[in-house]
Amino acid sequence: MTAQYVYINDTFIAAEKASVLITDLAIQRGYGIFDFFKTIGGKPIFLQDHLDRFYTSARKMHLTIPYTPAELKAIIAELMEKNDLPDSGIRMTLTGGYSADGYQLPETHNLIITQQHFLMHMDLNTSGIKVVTYDYQRQLSGMKTIDYSMAIWLQPFIRENNADDVLYHNDGQVKEVPRANFWMVNEAQEVITAKSSVLPGVIRKNLLSLENHPYKIVERDFSLQELDHAAEAFITSTTKHILPVLQIDGRPVGDGKAGKISSALLNLLVEKVRKH
Amino acid sequence: MTAQYVYINDTFIAAEKASVLITDLAIQRGYGIFDFFKTIGGKPIFLQDHLDRFYTSARKMHLTIPYTPAELKAIIAELMEKNDLPDSGIRMTLTGGYSADGYQLPETHNLIITQQHFLMHMDLNTSGIKVVTYDYQRQLSGMKTIDYSMAIWLQPFIRENNADDVLYHNDGQVKEVPRANFWMVNEAQEVITAKSSVLPGVIRKNLLSLENHPYKIVERDFSLQELDHAAEAFITSTTKHILPVLQIDGRPVGDGKAGKISSALLNLLVEKVRKH
Repeated sequence: MTAQYVYINDTFIAAEKASVLITDLAIQRGYGIFDFFKTIGGKPIFLQDHLDRFYTSARKMHLTIPYTPAELKAIIAELMEKNDLPDSGIRMTLTGGYSADGYQLPETHNLIITQQHFLMHMDLNTSGIKVVTYDYQRQLSGMKTIDYSMAIWLQPFIRENNADDVLYHNDGQVKEVPRANFWMVNEAQEVITAKSSVLPGVIRKNLLSLENHPYKIVERDFSLQELDHAAEAFITSTTKHILPVLQIDGRPVGDGKAGKISSALLNLLVEKVRKH
Repeated sequence: MTAQYVYINDTFIAAEKASVLITDLAIQRGYGIFDFFKTIGGKPIFLQDHLDRFYTSARKMHLTIPYTPAELKAIIAELMEKNDLPDSGIRMTLTGGYSADGYQLPETHNLIITQQHFLMHMDLNTSGIKVVTYDYQRQLSGMKTIDYSMAIWLQPFIRENNADDVLYHNDGQVKEVPRANFWMVNEAQEVITAKSSVLPGVIRKNLLSLENHPYKIVERDFSLQELDHAAEAFITSTTKHILPVLQIDGRPVGDGKAGKISSALLNLLVEKVRKH
């Protein structure tokens, strides 16, 4: 199921015709930001968090979103009505815009809002994923930019290593996977995610702020050495909630099965999503 | 003077209508490569070097150019004939292409060839430029990717520092400016450009391979400390040939004027271009 409509700047247009001129700085210089949220049964999930981050990314990247958050919400609601896809992912992209010399950042940018069918699974995917580590620090890491060049470039490397995704570390300090935050549970049952130079994920934020539970959930930097002794590991993202990581560089994490704390945290998170 | 025609994939189209669908990986994920050469009096300069680099960038980035170099040359010749802009810059861009899920690299990509009027100046620009230093290592630095996010992001920083451009260094090791290679001339009259993790510039290559001159032109890494004692500094690029750098972080380079060796090298380079 593909959405019929896409919103570009100030107009709803047929999705299959949605295009931008080649003078856009995204095409010329890879410059732009985006955000992505899901809808379940026609309800946007954690929308305010995503809007907050989208506006923050824009400001930090010297870009101006041409609408207030209220206006943007109204546009999103209209897009949802037109497309009639209750279970979906919605992506808001703001590209650098049309630059006369292909380098200077113009004052107006291109806003693109797309929607696609996406059905969120609420259960723990116990088959999990395998990751391979790679030494890389994402640039401009606090903002959700469109720059995934390293992630795309590493696709053959991931396949060659019989893995599903790549885990970035910066000189041994664990960071994140390209489209998700990374977490470990240590032997003392601390649930830890990297603190510095990672994307401020919305699920990450909502996990860190969970209430009424017995777990110690913290953000602090940790090393590959510490990760070697993890009891559990998982990633968090809008499309995955919590997805167990069962193997790192070919070695099992803990007993190599989806962990109990990962499962318990997913239940708490799903409860939060349902209340939301 | 704007070009009338742009070439996209297999068709010449009106420049003002040249667009790509928003599912292109350049817009979704900032993934693509390009190359850029100039024409003088209707003759492409160092075209073979640029084609070699374009094909090398493609291969290293897991992209396939849909034409042989000979076919590409014929397309370029036809574009030049149609646009009739004898003094120009021609950019060949290969974007990731249309990706079904916005993440996996597809097998076919989008080739875009654009031309714009550009008149090359052959004399030394003695007013030179001022640069401000910034600690940053370009990712995937050996390939000419479209990723200039850091360079675009730093535009306000450059203005605030009253500079014309930014000089990247990696933890004190001098690298390059975003669109040009960087060189220093030391007190022993060695002409030095960084060796590792920089773009293999075409003018850089042609300067390193200059023959019949008294200068010692070398590629080796050097530090900001060594640069502090430079007698001259300059940048090299397709659109600038050799452009003196007269100030770094507010301090003059040497006597703060365009240097004699910079000037002599430009003469040798221009001679090579004219022969070409």
